[in-house]
This record gives sequence, C-alpha cells and structure tokens, in this order.
Amino acid sequence: MDVMLYSALVLGVISLSYALYRKSWIERQDPGNEKLQEISKNIRDGAMAFMVREYKVMVVVVVAVAALLIAFKTRPGGLNLRWIGLSFVLGAILSGLAGLIGMRAATRANACTANAAQKGLVPALHVAFTGGSVMGLSVVGLAVIGLSSLVLFYVRFLGVSADNPQSMIDLMEIVSGYSLGASSVALFARVGGGIFTKAADVGADLAGKVIQGIPEDDPRNPATIADNVGDNVGDVAGLGSDLCESYIASIIGAMVLGAEMLKSMTFMALPLGVASVGILSSIIGTFFVRTREGGNPRKALSLGTIGASVLMLVGVFFLLQVTLPDAAMEGVGFTRMGLFLAICAGLVGGVLVGLITEYYTADDTKAVMEVARQSQTGAATNIIAGIQVGMLATGWPVVVLVAAMLGAYHFAGLYGIAIAAVGMLGTTGIQLAIDAYGPIADNAGGLAEMSKMPAAVRERTDKLDAVGNTTAAIGKGFAIGSATLTALALFVAFKESAGLEVIDITKAKVMGGLLFGAMLPYVFTSFIMGAVGRAAFQMIEEVKRQFREIKGIMDGEGKPDYVSCVDIATKAAIREMILPSLAAVTLPVLVGGLGGTEMLGGVLVGVTASCVMLALFTANSGGAWDNAKKYIEGGHYGGKGSDAHKAAVVGDTVGDPFKDTAGPAMDIVLKLMSVVSLIIVKMGFVTNPLF
Amino acid sequence: MDVMLYSALVLGVISLSYALYRKSWIERQDPGNEKLQEISKNIRDGAMAFMVREYKVMVVVVVAVAALLIAFKTRPGGLNLRWIGLSFVLGAILSGLAGLIGMRAATRANACTANAAQKGLVPALHVAFTGGSVMGLSVVGLAVIGLSSLVLFYVRFLGVSADNPQSMIDLMEIVSGYSLGASSVALFARVGGGIFTKAADVGADLAGKVIQGIPEDDPRNPATIADNVGDNVGDVAGLGSDLCESYIASIIGAMVLGAEMLKSMTFMALPLGVASVGILSSIIGTFFVRTREGGNPRKALSLGTIGASVLMLVGVFFLLQVTLPDAAMEGVGFTRMGLFLAICAGLVGGVLVGLITEYYTADDTKAVMEVARQSQTGAATNIIAGIQVGMLATGWPVVVLVAAMLGAYHFAGLYGIAIAAVGMLGTTGIQLAIDAYGPIADNAGGLAEMSKMPAAVRERTDKLDAVGNTTAAIGKGFAIGSATLTALALFVAFKESAGLEVIDITKAKVMGGLLFGAMLPYVFTSFIMGAVGRAAFQMIEEVKRQFREIKGIMDGEGKPDYVSCVDIATKAAIREMILPSLAAVTLPVLVGGLGGTEMLGGVLVGVTASCVMLALFTANSGGAWDNAKKYIEGGHYGGKGSDAHKAAVVGDTVGDPFKDTAGPAMDIVLKLMSVVSLIIVKMGFVTNPLF
Repeated sequence: MDVMLYSALVLGVISLSYALYRKSWIERQDPGNEKLQEISKNIRDGAMAFMVREYKVMVVVVVAVAALLIAFKTRPGGLNLRWIGLSFVLGAILSGLAGLIGMRAATRANACTANAAQKGLVPALHVAFTGGSVMGLSVVGLAVIGLSSLVLFYVRFLGVSADNPQSMIDLMEIVSGYSLGASSVALFARVGGGIFTKAADVGADLAGKVIQGIPEDDPRNPATIADNVGDNVGDVAGLGSDLCESYIASIIGAMVLGAEMLKSMTFMALPLGVASVGILSSIIGTFFVRTREGGNPRKALSLGTIGASVLMLVGVFFLLQVTLPDAAMEGVGFTRMGLFLAICAGLVGGVLVGLITEYYTADDTKAVMEVARQSQTGAATNIIAGIQVGMLATGWPVVVLVAAMLGAYHFAGLYGIAIAAVGMLGTTGIQLAIDAYGPIADNAGGLAEMSKMPAAVRERTDKLDAVGNTTAAIGKGFAIGSATLTALALFVAFKESAGLEVIDITKAKVMGGLLFGAMLPYVFTSFIMGAVGRAAFQMIEEVKRQFREIKGIMDGEGKPDYVSCVDIATKAAIREMILPSLAAVTLPVLVGGLGGTEMLGGVLVGVTASCVMLALFTANSGGAWDNAKKYIEGGHYGGKGSDAHKAAVVGDTVGDPFKDTAGPAMDIVLKLMSVVSLIIVKMGFVTNPLF
Repeated sequence: MDVMLYSALVLGVISLSYALYRKSWIERQDPGNEKLQEISKNIRDGAMAFMVREYKVMVVVVVAVAALLIAFKTRPGGLNLRWIGLSFVLGAILSGLAGLIGMRAATRANACTANAAQKGLVPALHVAFTGGSVMGLSVVGLAVIGLSSLVLFYVRFLGVSADNPQSMIDLMEIVSGYSLGASSVALFARVGGGIFTKAADVGADLAGKVIQGIPEDDPRNPATIADNVGDNVGDVAGLGSDLCESYIASIIGAMVLGAEMLKSMTFMALPLGVASVGILSSIIGTFFVRTREGGNPRKALSLGTIGASVLMLVGVFFLLQVTLPDAAMEGVGFTRMGLFLAICAGLVGGVLVGLITEYYTADDTKAVMEVARQSQTGAATNIIAGIQVGMLATGWPVVVLVAAMLGAYHFAGLYGIAIAAVGMLGTTGIQLAIDAYGPIADNAGGLAEMSKMPAAVRERTDKLDAVGNTTAAIGKGFAIGSATLTALALFVAFKESAGLEVIDITKAKVMGGLLFGAMLPYVFTSFIMGAVGRAAFQMIEEVKRQFREIKGIMDGEGKPDYVSCVDIATKAAIREMILPSLAAVTLPVLVGGLGGTEMLGGVLVGVTASCVMLALFTANSGGAWDNAKKYIEGGHYGGKGSDAHKAAVVGDTVGDPFKDTAGPAMDIVLKLMSVVSLIIVKMGFVTNPLF
C-alpha cells in the first residue's frame, strides 16, 4: 500500500515540477512585437482581474465553511471535524492554484504562439501545446500531491489500519472533505467562467456585428478583449477545474469503496497507484506530440492521447501484478485481470464518447451538413435541425457509458465501476493539455488579427484553431463521460457510506426524489441561460455607451475602454453564479435533512439522468450549430452574408450559452451534488430525517 | 364488488348514449351557407381520408398481434393467450371507435359553430362545447363499458375469486391486454396525428406566408385545408386517444394492485367505482357550462370543471362509505378516509398542474412577456428566452406531482398512488370535452375567414378561440400530469406483477437501464421533430408545384388541389409514425428479454424521468413562443411585420412541432412502454433474461 501512496506523491511532484519547468520555458519565449505584447497584456490583466475577484468570493466561502466545521470541532461518536475542515481548505487551495498556474501559462503562451507562427506551423504548435500542458500536468500533479500527502499524514497521525474499520471510515471522511474543497472551487470557476465567457462572446458578437458592423476580433470593438479574456477564464481555467474535480472525485470514490466495502488498505490505495501510472504516461505522451511543417497537427495531438492511453494500460497491467499481493485478492470477488479489464472499459469508454461527440459536431459530418442545409429555409428550420442533432446525439454516448459501466461491474463488481472511472480519468494530464491548447490557439489567432500580422500567420493559427475546435468537442465529450462515471462511483460510495443495503426505486420517497432530482438540472439550465442573456445585454449597453460617449472609436482615433467591459462581465458572472452555486450545495442538505438518505439517493439518480442527457444535448446541439455556420462560411449555400448564413448565425448564438455555459455547468452540478451528498451522509447529517 | 362493476357498465352506457344523443343534436344544427358547407365538407373528407388510412395500418397491426397471441394459444402453467388476444382487440376497437365518433362530431360542429356565431356568442359556445362533449363522453363511456363487461364476463367465465389468487392474476393479465389495445391505437393516433397536424401547419405557414405572401387561412393556399384537417386529427382525435389511454391505464394500474397486492376483489373493482362517480359528475358538469351574451366563456368552462370536480369528491366520499365493507378494510393498512384523501391528492394535483401550465403560457404573464421583449434583439434571443421559460416551467409541476404522489402514498400506500391517478383522471369526460372544444372553435374561426363571413362573426369565434388556447395549455398540463401518475401506477403494478421485492437502483444493471431509458425520449423527440421537418418540406414543395402548374390560383380563378396536400401529409404521417411506434413497443421487450425485469424497471424509471421533463419543457416553451408572437401581434414592440414579430415567428415555428408533436408523443411513449412492460412481465417473458 505504502508504495502506491509514495509513488503517487513522487509522481505528483515530478508532474508539477515538469509543468513549472515548461511554464518557465514559455516565459522565456519571444512574446513578439510591442502591439502584440500590449494586447496580450490587456487579456492577461483582464483574466487576472477576473480571477482575483472570483478568488476573493471563493476565499470567503471556503473560510466560512471551514470555520463552521472547526467551530463544531467534534461530534458525538465521530471524528474531529477540524480535520475535515483542514482537508477542505487544502483541496480548495490546490485546486485554485492549479487553475491559476494554468491560466497564467495560457495567457502568456497565446502571444508566443502568434509570434512563433511567423516562423511556421511546427514551432507554433509546440508553443501552444506546451502552454496547454502546463495546465494539464499541474492539475494532476497538485491533485495527487495533496491527496497522497493527506492520506500519508493521517495514516501516521490517526493510526489508520484495516484492523480498525472505523479508522478507515474516518480517513475517508477526511479525504471527502478534500474533494469537496476542489469541487467548490470548480463550481465557481466553471459556472462563473462559463457565464463570463459567453456573456462576453455574445455581447461582442451582437454589439460588434449587429450594431456597429465591425467584426468580433476588431480592436475597435470595446468588448473584444473581454471576449478573449473569456476564452481563458472559461475554456482554460474553467475546464481545468472541471476535470480536476472529476479527477479527484473519481479517485476518492474508488478509495471509499476500497476502504469501506472491501475494507482493504491496498484497494484504498490502488486508485492512487493507477493515477500515478496515468501521470507518468501523460508526461511521456506529451513527447509524442510532434509534427513536421505541412503536417497535420490533429494527428500529432491524437498520437499524444493514444500513446499515453496505451502506455497507461501496459503500466496498469504491471502495477496490478506487482502491487496486489495474493492475500489482498482473497474474498474480494474479482481477479487482477478483472480489475485490469474494468480499467480498460473505463479508458476505452472515455475515448469512444469523445470520438462520438466529434462525429456529431465536426464540420464535415452528415449531421452538421444537414443543419447547414436546413439553414436555407431560415432560422426556424436551422434551430429545429440543431435541436434534433443534439437530442439524437445523446444516443450512442449513453450506450457506450452504460456498456462501460456494465462491463466494469461484470469484471470487478461495484469497485470495478469506481476504478473504471479512475481509468477513464487516468490520462487527464494529457487530455487537459490538449483541451487547453485549443483556446490558446484561438487566442493566438485573435492576437494575430488584432495586431495586424501577415496573412500567412493568420492562416497557420487558423489551422491550429480548427484543430482546437475538434479537440474541444472531444474534450467536452470526455468531460461528460468522466463526470458520469465519477458520479456513479460517488453514488456507489454514497450508498456504501450510508449503510444502505438497497435503494429501492419503487418506494414512493425514492421515486419522488428521483423526479425532483431529474427536474433540477432543467431549472439550473434555465437560470444559467438567463444569466448569460442578462450579462450579454449589459455588455451590449456598455458598448453602445462607449460608441456614443468616446469619440473617434470607429476611425481608430479614440481608444475603447476595454477594462470596463471586462469589469461588467466579471461582476455579472460573479453575481449570477451565487444562486445556482448555493442551490447545488444546499439542496442535497435540505432533501437529506427532510427526507433521509434513500430520498437523497433518489435525487442523486434523477440529477444524474438529467444532467448527463442535458450535457450531451447542449454540447452536441451547440457544436453542430457552430460548425454549420462555419461550413456555410466556407462558401456553401451562398457563404458569408447569405440568408442561410444569417439563419446559421442565429443557431450559433443560441448554441453558445448552450454548449459553453449550460452544458459544462451540468458536469459540475452532477459531481458537486454527489460529493455534497457523500459528505453529509458521512457526517451523519441525514440519519434522522424529519419526514 | 358487483355493484361497482355493474354501476360502471350502466354509467358507461348512459355516458355513451348521452354522447350519441348530443351528436345527433349537432347534426340537426344548421351548417350555414353553401360556401361554409363546402369548406367544412373538404375538412371532413380530408380528416376521414386520414383516419381511414391510419385505421387500415392499425387493423393490420392489431390483427397481427392478436393472431400471434392466438397462434400460441396456451403457454405452460399460464393462461390461455387467446383471451389476452381478444381483450387486446376489444381495447383497440373501442379506442378507435371513440376517436372516430369524436372526430366526426368535431368536423360537423365547426361549421355549425361558425354559423351559430352569426346569432351570438352564447349559441356559438353552446354548439362548440357540445361538439367537444361528444368526444369526452364517448371516450369515457366506451372505455368503462369495455372494461367492466370484460371483467364481468371473465369473472363469470373463469370463476375468478379472491380465494384463488391465480385466477385474479389471470384476470389482470386479460385486462392488461385491453389496455395494450387502447395504447396501440393511441400511439398511432397521437404520433401520426401529431406529425400530420404540424407538417400541415408548418407547411401552410411557410408556403403561404413566406413564398407567396398570402395568409395561412386564405382559401388560395393549397395547404390550408390540410392545416384544418390537422387540427381535427391531431388535437381532437389525437388528444382524445391520449387521454383515453391514460384513463384506461390508470384504472387498470389500480386494479392490478387491488387484485395482486391487496388480493381483494373489492379493491380490484373500486377503481371502476370511482370512475363511475367521475362519469356521472362529468355529465352533470357539462350543464354548468353556460354563459350570457357578453360574458366570459372561460369562466363558463372553468365552472364546468370545478363543478364536476367538487361533485366527484362528494360522490367518491359516499362511494367509499357505502361500497367498502369493514371486512375489506382489514389488514390493508389504510382507512376509507386515507383512500379519500389519496383521491383528493390526485384530483387537486391534476388541476394544479394545469393551472401552472396556464401561468407559464397564457399571453399576459411575465414569462411570455419576457419572451416577447427578448424578440426585439432578434430570433436568437427569442429562442433562448423560450427555452429558458420551458425549462424553468418544469419546476413547479414536478413539485406538485411529487407532492401528490407522496401525499397519496402517505394516505393509502402504493394503492393510494394508483387510486390517486384514477382520481386525477376521474373527470376526464368533461376535461376532454373542454379540450376538444378548442380546435372546434379554432376551426370555426378558420371557416368564418375562408367563407368571408362578417367581421362580427370572426370577432366572436376569435373570442372562443382565445379561450381555446388557454384550455389547450391546461389540457396539455393535465395530460402530462395524468400520464405521469398513470405511469407511476403502472410501474408499481409492474413491480408487483414481476414479484420483485425491491428494484435496487444501486445495482449496475438497474442503473444502466435507467440511463438507457432516460436517453430514449431524447432520441424519440429528435426523430419526431425530424419527421415533421421532412413532411413539412414535402408540403412546401407541393404548394410550390401547384402555384407553378395550376394557373390563376392567386387571382382566385384556378382552384388549388387541397386533396393532394392532405394526401401528402397523410402519407408522410403514416410512414413516419411506424419507426417510433415499433421502437416504443419492441424496446421493452428487448431490454426485458436480454436484461431481465430489474433492468427493465430501471429503463421504465429513466423513461419516466425524461418523458415528464421533456413533455413539460416542450409544452411550455412552445406555448410561450406561441403566445409571445400573439402578444406582439396585439400591437406590442412594433406589432405585426416588425422585426420583433419576425423573430417571434421563428420561435413560434420552432415551438409548433415542440409542443404539438414531440411533447404529446412523450405522454404516449411513457404510458405505452409501461403497459408493454407490464404485459410482458405478466406473460412471463422476462423471467429468464439472457444476461
């Protein structure tokens, strides 16, 4: 057991060190000419301004929760709550730190990428991907450093051992606190970042294109910097904390089952061992991302993921042989091979869901072309076609996820489901690197445009950006798939911790909870779409005001006030994220307190069902609308400015908050509610329901 | 027990006779001038042509299923399958007959209503509502005649008694066959009718308004008759068979629990007793629908529903005192008062869900005005606002339904949930009468327009039509609410019949089934939206062809070929309904056969969760878009022809297939899959799963 915990700690440190080394490499790169540097600095400052304000809110929340836990100190027959409070703070700090490091690297890498694109595609890809890998490797590094040192510390401190089941339960309570800390940060980062990015995007689009007739990336558009800031706080920091949460929660879900169901220190530590192998594979995988001039960057990135996945499988195979003594395998009901196959099921499932998402949203597929074709008869048919694609696209991913889950269960029981989630998320390091590469390339393109670099540069960044759109779609699919498996793992852990034999869906309470839970994600989505709308509206008003009050913006004489646009989006995002965040945290507490664990279990299942479907639906509809617009802009059905294009723009505008705010929020709501439920059931809060 | 069965039979006959008497009254009314009669005849012929073609397909399916059952005749240890086949055929015939009678009355009443409107509002309301009540009363009449005579026949024939539990189980298998027959017809009528009506509506809209610039109701528009036919086959016959299915299935769900869980003939018969009281109350309620000239028709209709509901509660209270002997109440775990309160919970829940739906979609509410306001900034914000309203509007109805269910359970256990569904549906007779009144008034308006009647007539029919839109929204809410409670009742019956102690959601199989089930409604919705799009596209092409080939349509010289438009919509509807229908029937069989009862239970729960949410979402989004358009047409934000209006038209066009095809199909899919599952588990098909 110890070997797995220490190897996790060591590999976490290696991963973080390597990430910081790469970050310093980025900082030594040439950030280009003065103009480029100035715009890049504006984006960086805007992003930092947002992060600072967001983190201030987070600090208040984190301190409040920790204080509450520490104030109560101990509870009858249970653990010292102070420890839970401390792990909670640690989880929040590390998760916040990972987002910050990644975001700073990304806002630096964008200018360097634009500058490197002057030399060619190869150096540009290298810089952009390196920027992304800082995020990927620091997230996984910090996550396992925190988790493994927590476990090592408490094992020593509390004297945890398999002979004393209560000590294992206590330990799991403490690490769940860690997960809750990471989740809380993720919620703020993802929901706040999501609202910011789309408010800015929709605002810049509508204000620029519709009202003043200048393009989105035009430096005369006051909202343009806010739009670029949004890419960084939403798509880099937001996605990072999303996957970070999945990563931590999936490991902890499996740990809880190992400790409480299998009552084994070895199986408690195994998830960290699997994660270590995944980190090593991810680091090696980053070296596979190489292309030659004129080559296809997409192939290079795919090679990275596939290489890392294969390496991980090989590594895990040996890990299981070496670290699992025969004694540990007695009576658990599965074999080493079974465990291996369960991990395979998770890993393959994750890759497949990503590929299916790509199929429905990549710009040359039947689904997207149909949306484009339907745009000819107007906005209404474009919208109907997009909704159709999104709803249809829930089909195969669900089949794959169900098959992965059933497979994992078949091979290694409930523990198999949890370890499959760890398997799926094992390569998070490189997955996240590739995901973060996308917005960096996107930003680089915007910078090249704004600083009026030669057309060849823009061409190269466009090529990188196009690949980024595909990887973004795959990344979204992966995030949804991993959130689903993680939620299932947490749900199983929840049941185990609640000491429930079964959760009987034919009980009225459970069924009521389920319907109630299934409804919540719809209301959330409604609220978040509304938040984006309200924030975008404010943004448009501000752009109008600037054009009215600041003279000479149009002819480049007057300088638009970028900061005030960033400020508006920041304030709106932070204001709007509070209600849904509070709801996501307090509802499980309320339901659990009023209706008890079984009803809470029903709620979780309902939330899972609706969150997964809505996440898939919104991601795929949004992606299809986006790419249908691009397809038409590529010269089909009359190209840019045609009626079909106008219709497609409507779809794209609807799709923006759909795919980049509402959808990703579903992943978070799903996991957060599961983690909160797990915690409150562990803390014994729901043992005496009112009804 | 006998008293309840016989009283059901007698009241069924009274209800049917009264419906037929009212039908003959309608036929004696003056159908107006020649022009009016001609157009009305066109609509009637079109509707009949559709019904005949649809019924031909149904006959093939019904005969095939019955033949299959009869061919197998007997199965080891079980009932003679021939009986199930016969009940199945009976259910299908009666349900089909009810749709036909109602539709014929409606297509007759529309012209009479338009003609009566020349005299005033009072006679017009009277004719329209009488037309609707033919549908309402014949549906409930035929349903209970069939059901009670089946039970009476088999009780005599098979010697059913509480002393022989197997005989009760056999009887329930037979009546489930009856329910399946009604469900099959409902599926065809609702899905086929839904596709027809919206293909015609969208086709007529786009073809008329966009391509040729003539209004929807203009007799020069070749698709206009098809559009009116659609109102009758979709909103009258389709809705009728939908509620008929809910009505029958809810009664049978409660009967199964009475027979198999409580093992009591009395509680098996009670649902029919409650239904009898409901029928009597509905008949009396129709007399409350009275208004004076200048009065508010909406109040008159509300008085009818409220009157019937109050009467029913009073009647049920006495029914429970009189028909439940003390012996029957022993050991069932609830009291007469408990049963009464459970029925109240259902009835009140149904009314509340209707009222909430009205709130979100009525044209003067905050939600609708917000959608209208957002139309000012274009189609994209209009669409986002509509989606927002629809998703938000899932909230309260779910809370109410869950509360009704938990309340019913609290008062009378699982049987309470099932009897609450019967309570909710008790007043179906008058509910359906009011629902069917809507399209009659709508058609009357169209006829007045087409036959160029004086403006005062159109004004009066518009007033009736506006009320019809509100009642349609309430009716949709009621249909969803009742489908939900019915599905829950069937689910409980399913569990009971499967002999399962629990359905444990933490089992991998059940959870997998649930996610799979939750996905299906999305794929269905996608398919059905696509079907409408494809059919509408064909319709537009046909209209274009006619304008090209038939000379002088525009100046009224040439006569458009209405029949070919009706024909296209008919063919498309029938072709497109086959795949989803087959899927809804075969999927439970497949899942049950492969994965067993528990997995099938999981699928049912998943289907329920998603169907309820999607039904609410689509109904409310669609209603909000529709009324936002009407609000703007009422002179707000620039009125007709403004940019805001154009944006609102986009929303309305998206909303049409949403609320009138996809949403209602959800109700049916939900109930049908539950009924099919109940049947196959009863027939022992799923006892030996492959996996």
